Amino acid sequence: MTAAADTGAPIFETLAVIGIGNLGSSVARAVRKYGAVRRVIAADLSEDALARAKELKLADAYFEAPSKAVAEADIVVLCTPLGAFGAIAKAMAPHLKPGAVVTDVGSVKGAVIAAAAPHLPQTVSFVPGHPIAGTEKSGPDAGSSDLFVGRYWILTPEDGTDREAVAKVTALWTRCGALVEEMKAEYHDKVLAVTSHLPHLIAYTIVGTAIDMEGQEQQDVIRFSAGGFRDFTRIAGSSPIMWRDIFLNNREAVLEMLQRFSEDLTYLQRAIRWGEGDKLQELFTRTREVRRGVIEAKQDKPFPEGGAGK
Amino acid sequence: MTAAADTGAPIFETLAVIGIGNLGSSVARAVRKYGAVRRVIAADLSEDALARAKELKLADAYFEAPSKAVAEADIVVLCTPLGAFGAIAKAMAPHLKPGAVVTDVGSVKGAVIAAAAPHLPQTVSFVPGHPIAGTEKSGPDAGSSDLFVGRYWILTPEDGTDREAVAKVTALWTRCGALVEEMKAEYHDKVLAVTSHLPHLIAYTIVGTAIDMEGQEQQDVIRFSAGGFRDFTRIAGSSPIMWRDIFLNNREAVLEMLQRFSEDLTYLQRAIRWGEGDKLQELFTRTREVRRGVIEAKQDKPFPEGGAGK
Repeated sequence: MTAAADTGAPIFETLAVIGIGNLGSSVARAVRKYGAVRRVIAADLSEDALARAKELKLADAYFEAPSKAVAEADIVVLCTPLGAFGAIAKAMAPHLKPGAVVTDVGSVKGAVIAAAAPHLPQTVSFVPGHPIAGTEKSGPDAGSSDLFVGRYWILTPEDGTDREAVAKVTALWTRCGALVEEMKAEYHDKVLAVTSHLPHLIAYTIVGTAIDMEGQEQQDVIRFSAGGFRDFTRIAGSSPIMWRDIFLNNREAVLEMLQRFSEDLTYLQRAIRWGEGDKLQELFTRTREVRRGVIEAKQDKPFPEGGAGK
Repeated sequence: MTAAADTGAPIFETLAVIGIGNLGSSVARAVRKYGAVRRVIAADLSEDALARAKELKLADAYFEAPSKAVAEADIVVLCTPLGAFGAIAKAMAPHLKPGAVVTDVGSVKGAVIAAAAPHLPQTVSFVPGHPIAGTEKSGPDAGSSDLFVGRYWILTPEDGTDREAVAKVTALWTRCGALVEEMKAEYHDKVLAVTSHLPHLIAYTIVGTAIDMEGQEQQDVIRFSAGGFRDFTRIAGSSPIMWRDIFLNNREAVLEMLQRFSEDLTYLQRAIRWGEGDKLQELFTRTREVRRGVIEAKQDKPFPEGGAGK
């Protein structure tokens, strides 16, 4: 991508990762493994998470307060739940180095830009981002240095953003194995509402519906979960706070897709009630083609071949 | 389970498998690998599937017509889509050996009993069954001899069924590694509506909703599918005919669960619209517990450790 990425020289000197959970610890592991930065500073408001990050030796320095962590950083990566972005941006703003780049891994872009950008000084560049990667697990232990290999990493810079900053962030994540793409924040939020937010909402709902069954039935729902329900429990095991914030921050796009989904579900419900097998079979045949598309795009496995290690 | 299962002697002499797709070929592979029968006969109305089964040497003899395949069978296992069960039972009935046992792997039990049982002669025992195992793939190549290891296999015999026949079918699938459980057909259909049928319906719907997006958005839904949508496309890649038949044959239970699901989804939709984060977080925290239950029940992986081989 850039000369730095080709030669293997570090792309930034010092990286500060704010929030050292699944994604934050994956960022810390990846930039070190691929030599993308010289120094990693970790911040987390949770004492437990920070202590665990120390035990795992994920960074070179550790701070509870984002304001302290960012003082020497050339690039700051926000990896907390979305709801905290505004407050963190405000707290760290006076301490950011002039010329630093701020980016994030948040699953919603429009609301994140609205919450964080107004607090950031003119002397730094904000390049919002989102890796389409992750697992349902939480905490510093859940991360992986190869989480981003072969995965898309979307950047949504605004029109006036410094192109050099965008190029360096692109080089950073490319070095970590990601396929970096640029798009408008609004478009990102619409596509992700379908590919990620709605699936999570549906999974949470169906697992909730199953929980509400009584006694023996509830137990058997878990024992006999291998028939499809299992996959939904995995998705519905994701971080409650992270996902609460996603739905609250991408409300319009999620509600729009949910409306379409409900209409389509009612269509199938009616077909089942009236025994219209042809309508069911026709849809099921079309959806099967989509699976082939996902496999062809090599996005069908949680990790690329041989890439599941820490 | 029985003396035969302990000593390793075959439990039946000759097994006929009707329908040699994913499940049928897995049955053929498993009973051979674990020495559960002496001889396997395969039948499939599809010439291609039968030819492929021959190439894979899955059985000792091959027939297109079920009526020919069952003539020497001590146990017959129906592995076709549910919609064919009535016609197959009728066609094979006059050719069944007196004393033979008939079982199946159908995902719905009440409707299957109603469709098949009336055609079967009094001289045979019908022990309906359903392994909670399988993948989204179809055809003789998709099967695995270890598909049933560590998986539940539910039997739903009626009150008057010969207990010796039930014990032998239990021994057969126990030998193949399954955890055999007995329950009422109606109860099975209710639990599976939640754990399997509803999840599939939802997955088909959401993939259908995504298909209906326009142009570039549709492409990007596939490219960025790793955020959750991927898992739904896998489920929605299952056999269209098999699943059409499941929904048509478990209509009442599926519609009942779908109604509950829709109410729960509307509750979340309203919480998102009004920004009620506490309601979202409360549910998401409860559903996370369910995931822990699935992992504790060792039903969280498609195959048990080391058991994914053919």
